[in-house]
Amino acid sequence: MSEPWTLHPDRALPADPTTREIAREIYASTRSLPIVSMHGHVPVEWFADDAPFGDPAQLFVVPDHYLTRMLVSQGETLPRLGVGSTGTEAVEQDPRAIWRRFCAGWKHFRGTPTRYWLEHAFVEIFGVTQRPSADTADAIYDQVAARLESPEFRPRALLDAFDIEVIATTDPAWASLEDHARLAEDGFGDRVLPTFRPDPLLHVDRETWRDEIDLLARAADVEVDEYDAYLEALRVQRRRFVEAGARATDHGHLWADTTPLDDAEARRIFAAALAGEVTADEARAFSGHMLFEMARMSCEDGLVMQLHPGVLRNHASAPFAAFGPDKGYDIPAVTEFTRSLQPLLDAFGHHPGFRFIVFTVDEDVYSRELAPLAGVYPAMKLGAPWWFLDAPDAMRRFREAATETAGFSNLSGFVDDTRAFCSIPARHDLARRVDAGYLARLVAEHRLEQDEAVEVAGDLAYRSALASYPQP
Amino acid sequence: MSEPWTLHPDRALPADPTTREIAREIYASTRSLPIVSMHGHVPVEWFADDAPFGDPAQLFVVPDHYLTRMLVSQGETLPRLGVGSTGTEAVEQDPRAIWRRFCAGWKHFRGTPTRYWLEHAFVEIFGVTQRPSADTADAIYDQVAARLESPEFRPRALLDAFDIEVIATTDPAWASLEDHARLAEDGFGDRVLPTFRPDPLLHVDRETWRDEIDLLARAADVEVDEYDAYLEALRVQRRRFVEAGARATDHGHLWADTTPLDDAEARRIFAAALAGEVTADEARAFSGHMLFEMARMSCEDGLVMQLHPGVLRNHASAPFAAFGPDKGYDIPAVTEFTRSLQPLLDAFGHHPGFRFIVFTVDEDVYSRELAPLAGVYPAMKLGAPWWFLDAPDAMRRFREAATETAGFSNLSGFVDDTRAFCSIPARHDLARRVDAGYLARLVAEHRLEQDEAVEVAGDLAYRSALASYPQP
Amino acid sequence: MSEPWTLHPDRALPADPTTREIAREIYASTRSLPIVSMHGHVPVEWFADDAPFGDPAQLFVVPDHYLTRMLVSQGETLPRLGVGSTGTEAVEQDPRAIWRRFCAGWKHFRGTPTRYWLEHAFVEIFGVTQRPSADTADAIYDQVAARLESPEFRPRALLDAFDIEVIATTDPAWASLEDHARLAEDGFGDRVLPTFRPDPLLHVDRETWRDEIDLLARAADVEVDEYDAYLEALRVQRRRFVEAGARATDHGHLWADTTPLDDAEARRIFAAALAGEVTADEARAFSGHMLFEMARMSCEDGLVMQLHPGVLRNHASAPFAAFGPDKGYDIPAVTEFTRSLQPLLDAFGHHPGFRFIVFTVDEDVYSRELAPLAGVYPAMKLGAPWWFLDAPDAMRRFREAATETAGFSNLSGFVDDTRAFCSIPARHDLARRVDAGYLARLVAEHRLEQDEAVEVAGDLAYRSALASYPQP
Repeated sequence: MSEPWTLHPDRALPADPTTREIAREIYASTRSLPIVSMHGHVPVEWFADDAPFGDPAQLFVVPDHYLTRMLVSQGETLPRLGVGSTGTEAVEQDPRAIWRRFCAGWKHFRGTPTRYWLEHAFVEIFGVTQRPSADTADAIYDQVAARLESPEFRPRALLDAFDIEVIATTDPAWASLEDHARLAEDGFGDRVLPTFRPDPLLHVDRETWRDEIDLLARAADVEVDEYDAYLEALRVQRRRFVEAGARATDHGHLWADTTPLDDAEARRIFAAALAGEVTADEARAFSGHMLFEMARMSCEDGLVMQLHPGVLRNHASAPFAAFGPDKGYDIPAVTEFTRSLQPLLDAFGHHPGFRFIVFTVDEDVYSRELAPLAGVYPAMKLGAPWWFLDAPDAMRRFREAATETAGFSNLSGFVDDTRAFCSIPARHDLARRVDAGYLARLVAEHRLEQDEAVEVAGDLAYRSALASYPQP
Repeated sequence: MSEPWTLHPDRALPADPTTREIAREIYASTRSLPIVSMHGHVPVEWFADDAPFGDPAQLFVVPDHYLTRMLVSQGETLPRLGVGSTGTEAVEQDPRAIWRRFCAGWKHFRGTPTRYWLEHAFVEIFGVTQRPSADTADAIYDQVAARLESPEFRPRALLDAFDIEVIATTDPAWASLEDHARLAEDGFGDRVLPTFRPDPLLHVDRETWRDEIDLLARAADVEVDEYDAYLEALRVQRRRFVEAGARATDHGHLWADTTPLDDAEARRIFAAALAGEVTADEARAFSGHMLFEMARMSCEDGLVMQLHPGVLRNHASAPFAAFGPDKGYDIPAVTEFTRSLQPLLDAFGHHPGFRFIVFTVDEDVYSRELAPLAGVYPAMKLGAPWWFLDAPDAMRRFREAATETAGFSNLSGFVDDTRAFCSIPARHDLARRVDAGYLARLVAEHRLEQDEAVEVAGDLAYRSALASYPQP
Repeated sequence: MSEPWTLHPDRALPADPTTREIAREIYASTRSLPIVSMHGHVPVEWFADDAPFGDPAQLFVVPDHYLTRMLVSQGETLPRLGVGSTGTEAVEQDPRAIWRRFCAGWKHFRGTPTRYWLEHAFVEIFGVTQRPSADTADAIYDQVAARLESPEFRPRALLDAFDIEVIATTDPAWASLEDHARLAEDGFGDRVLPTFRPDPLLHVDRETWRDEIDLLARAADVEVDEYDAYLEALRVQRRRFVEAGARATDHGHLWADTTPLDDAEARRIFAAALAGEVTADEARAFSGHMLFEMARMSCEDGLVMQLHPGVLRNHASAPFAAFGPDKGYDIPAVTEFTRSLQPLLDAFGHHPGFRFIVFTVDEDVYSRELAPLAGVYPAMKLGAPWWFLDAPDAMRRFREAATETAGFSNLSGFVDDTRAFCSIPARHDLARRVDAGYLARLVAEHRLEQDEAVEVAGDLAYRSALASYPQP
């Protein structure tokens, strides 16, 4: 352990020597392909402002709920990790103290993809030469902090360093898209794209809904006082996103339900919501209806529709009250797709202008529901393993469960879906390695020729992601 | 890619050299065993008439929904593939044009079992020496078409060529069984067996139900004007199937429910159905009740009861309206077995004359429900991986999930469940290879002796299928 | 097959030579660690009385439902295997006849963990040198019977021979704990620990409930005539268990529901139950409420709370009527955790004094629900693969599905959960081998360093089990 920390060139490739040798060749053909990141959550301001990142704790620890949740599970608290105060506990102000706690907990990440991503970023991006631990925390902190001061570590420079050909941000439906306009002026218009995310506008019983409607009305310059105006305002904003280069919409509902309501009922529920008198059942029905309407609009304007249902948000009430959403307390729940997606697919699944990409955190449905659906409807593609499933073994299970029914042509290509900017190269690299390993096994088992495997690997790593999100 | 197309002798065997060597020996012991195909859907007329097959497109493309659905998912249409017309699109009449479209889409089958089956049939049965592609489509078409003209490629000759010891067809409950009688006259009575399939008669709210009842009444020569006559007519026809050599019944319900109704309620629902006044709930309850009754009749007459629930048929309405059922739009849905099968198993699961084989397309239930049930009830056997799961990795998952709880003695042996006659050797060959690989791993991990593995492999490939479907 | 029966030193290690070599080293570091068995069902009387075991059939066949259920599935009957009489069939009295039936059915255990455990016990504990079969049954019987007469095969001697550092029994909530007191007098107080199992007291609609309440009242010396007295009596008995060395409670509900009732409703239902007027829905709600209350008491008294839901008991009515519970007819059913555990985790999941260990027989929930929950709530740990899942491939799937989200630090360590005392060394050995194989793959794929793998293996095999069940 005293030799300098390096990463093994064969990491995450299969152990069997026959398969590994084939996997190496396949991986060699994809490892240097540019990164296409068509679904992610890096804040657009980072690229628009191009300001230096903060300290190592602010870059790596505080905003990464994969990381903080693991330390919380082991007895750390969010305030001690720099995330908000509670009534009884003040937030840690010293980034070095946060960093030490993280490094002291390094061993808890064994066997997780967080470990892989962090290793990759530390060694390959920041030149760290020691493994994290209580003893090495300060030295690593200093090393990372020093690099962060360099202009080469500004966000736009990293786009080049990471070889990111195109990256999509996620933006509220009412976004002004000013940051994207600034980026376009600076020549980044084809490289940093907005994504239309209307969730808070489609869930009419959320506390924030009225405020969201006001923001939408202002952005679209439409008075949203009834249902048809609401649809119109959404259409206006979608058009604006298309003009700003958007390729897709993004929908994170709890349920996959897409049952349409008749217009009168939709109008009635919308009016009730405006009057503050909507029930939970009505709100739920309305959100399913609006997925159907979003699909209809996608047929019109060509925005790819992305759906990732099935996560019960904010499972614990006290952390939610103290720290807000996205703090690691979102837990998957069983999700049905076959019946839920039927209305949408029956109506639009053969529409030539419609592209529908579905993600899941419930891997049971890969072979039972999603692969059979993607394997027949021309509009539908199966998204990449998502969130809790973006890990080596889970990605392998995805390939094994989906491919035999859906083939490779019905998959959307890899997306990283992350707000952890520095983990993007690691995530794509890991996906390419896992795919190389899976394809190598098919080759070793004489189920695929080597030249076919290389072509498929390039599709999955790069070409499919581009092709699945065409310009509207 | 310019050398002639051959199939690697080790295809679908494990990559690890240690395991592969063991797998080769196990596979060598099963590869030449005769084929027992006790559950399938090859039309009996093919064997009764022994007419030549049509052109290559009619043999391989048009009737195979595994194949057409994949091409549809990539933008082809069913009419362009020879399947029916729509109001706006005429069906393709030129088999060569269909064939070219199929060959041009060859790459979409990468990683699917369709690819394996087709490769096997093309190379081993039709002597094709070039991989399918737009460039080679015509040459392959000519090659296959030429062979199809030869008498060696008539259905009965292929029974010998494929070494099919026995094959079961699927026949409506009201079938006259004349084709089977003709086959018996020609000496094929023990080789081509009918299977009793009463589904359309058990779902009293289907549009076709009244017509089916009339067909049943005529076939059984029983006036089916009330429930008891209905049961009697079913009994008469089951007896006729037994006399014609049938070994089994086949049941493809959406739900696995087997809850019996009391006689009065069953009579009431049946009368309501005859009067055209049945509700969906009543119809569903009646179909569950009738599974219970079918089990009771199996205890009486010895027909093995096969149940494969869980597929939501005709997911898209427009293709169903235009082209009818079985066009690739059947999608699995989550299916419960533990509670659903309890009434049937509690009543008949220990009956010495009852044999009950259950298939699934919902692989979640392998380890959770089906293996535990098959592992205690003497009447129940767990069927082979079915439909979307009849692929190398899915079959391996089935073995891994079912064996540790149910062992090998509670499995029914492989069935191919296909209407694609020329894929039958390929399907059995693939299953034997996958089983050889699974068993080889157990041997390599010293969890089984080699001689035991060879015995089990022969059971799974041949002996269990015979034993699981005994003559009543 | 004529050479003496020995067990291969590499059994259950991965086949790939690279991985196996690493696995051997990891396993070498854990194989001699003491056994910590913190969740099991060996009767306390065995240790308290230290009487010799009965004959081989009474030790190995009659009480082991893993074993008898498999033979029943193949046509044996429980009476012929020594388990109870029915109206028409007398129980077999001759242990040698039972033993012969078991040996004759040896092949049905191929591929199951029962086979592994029995092999281990026969060869390593009883020195058997022939494989079981109809031919060898008598010789093996004599060999095992002879050993059982020796004082080295008394239960307390076997504790030493098996190197069991500590073992927990399962005891009714009203247990007098006299056997544990006797053990404490003999110096076994820290080695054989009681576990508080209140299930029959929490299900107010079971036939035995009133008797259980009487037993509780007597044990706690509290008049249990209303709800608060009931809680008080439970508290008294929990305290008594703590004083007797208990570390944990154990809860085997059908559902994972933990929704609390308000006090008035709980009082009302309890009173209705005492009056014999409780409904099934009320009883079910009350059982969920009581899990919540048990968690609250665990926060007070420090007993670790173990929950293993999801098994539908006594699936077949006739065997239940004839032979009672635990005869192999318990079948898993789909189980929801994310929503069900939310009330309990929201209330107590961050409580510093609370430890909550969850097991499952529904492996779908590993990656979807249990790993995400254990990976954030500090109180929760994910238990070992349980019951139908305590087998090599199922344990591997558990590691692969849980680790990437929960890491290793959120797992409770292995528990054997068995009443088959002589299988305990085999079960721990098998788990250590499977973990060594899993960890070896991570090392071979450069996802973990070898020294880390060795540390984790020791945690999983020994240290985590100790740490997860701390002294209150």
